[in-house]
Amino acid sequence: MKSKVVITIARQFGSGGREIGEKLAEKLEIPFYDKSLIHLAAQESGIDEDLFHFADEKSFHGFWAASASNAGIYGNRIPMFNELPMNDQLFLIQSKIIRKLAESDSCVIVGRCADYILRDDPHTIPVFIHSDEEDRLNRIIHIYGIAEKDARDVMIKTDKRRAAYYNYYSGGKWGRADNYDLSVNSGSVGIDGAVDLIIKLVELKSAL
Amino acid sequence: MKSKVVITIARQFGSGGREIGEKLAEKLEIPFYDKSLIHLAAQESGIDEDLFHFADEKSFHGFWAASASNAGIYGNRIPMFNELPMNDQLFLIQSKIIRKLAESDSCVIVGRCADYILRDDPHTIPVFIHSDEEDRLNRIIHIYGIAEKDARDVMIKTDKRRAAYYNYYSGGKWGRADNYDLSVNSGSVGIDGAVDLIIKLVELKSAL
Repeated sequence: MKSKVVITIARQFGSGGREIGEKLAEKLEIPFYDKSLIHLAAQESGIDEDLFHFADEKSFHGFWAASASNAGIYGNRIPMFNELPMNDQLFLIQSKIIRKLAESDSCVIVGRCADYILRDDPHTIPVFIHSDEEDRLNRIIHIYGIAEKDARDVMIKTDKRRAAYYNYYSGGKWGRADNYDLSVNSGSVGIDGAVDLIIKLVELKSAL
Repeated sequence: MKSKVVITIARQFGSGGREIGEKLAEKLEIPFYDKSLIHLAAQESGIDEDLFHFADEKSFHGFWAASASNAGIYGNRIPMFNELPMNDQLFLIQSKIIRKLAESDSCVIVGRCADYILRDDPHTIPVFIHSDEEDRLNRIIHIYGIAEKDARDVMIKTDKRRAAYYNYYSGGKWGRADNYDLSVNSGSVGIDGAVDLIIKLVELKSAL
């Protein structure tokens, strides 16, 4: 890599965004972060890693709904931490980790509002991966192993959760093309095609 | 060109979408259509070309508002044609022309809901071009020649009109990444960079 580049990948569930991120990181020989951010955030903060997993990409309402349905853990109240609802606190810790990683070196970060968190970093290239429903359902059933009868429901709910998380923290609108430098339909061009397009973008930006 | 390809370009006002479309058509050596569609639609239908210009990329409400503010031409009523509001009729005529062009040969079509009209055509590659506000205002003022004091207002109103037109006829949401195979921030990568990315996509799809 000639110069530092931080590629953030937001993605519809089932679009292969994580796989695209992994292949991209491998080709560019730079680190890849998705759920591994949670481990780093837990380490940094000393907060139980399970709590981060529980709050992962959930907005206030998503987190609260999950807490309420799990009252055995949190009782009948919103978990608070340092005067902030727990999920906001976890978001801040995760944001700090994301900024630290982006400052130190090139990398690929999947999800977790990274495009918004790094919006003022000139090295950041925000990307969105989506695909048509048929292609996504096919991946969800045959690669992620979710039962056919549940696949559509899981797909819709996961994207609703991701959108709510993004919209809550960014004040923007998840999936709007103008949030990103590049949005690609992985169903149209394939996983490798999407990787090639992102690499082309990185090359073009490096040459500017 | 190895095989037929129809590239539709939707674009934010000031993003350079038309210029990108023209350069793309030139590089691929295929025809380019934007406002020229209006001439073809007028020829095909025998309807006054001025009426098409008047209705161009305006939805029912935009068309009606423009008619109302121009009551000298249409009086105090919605112009009707063959039992349909005039703008719907013009949309149908324009759609027929777009389908005819897309059937006969490769081309680039800018605006006019072409991605939606050609949504079932397997040769169609729908693209969206956007850019950040600063870059768009710069283009609107210095290239399109709109007065600085009016530029922001014209930009916002034109995009609102385009969105209303698209949403009215497609039932979808203009500017949502998942309407398109590729969305590019021309401010991030430049006009030529956006052209290169679209050509890369065409090559990748031709190779599939």
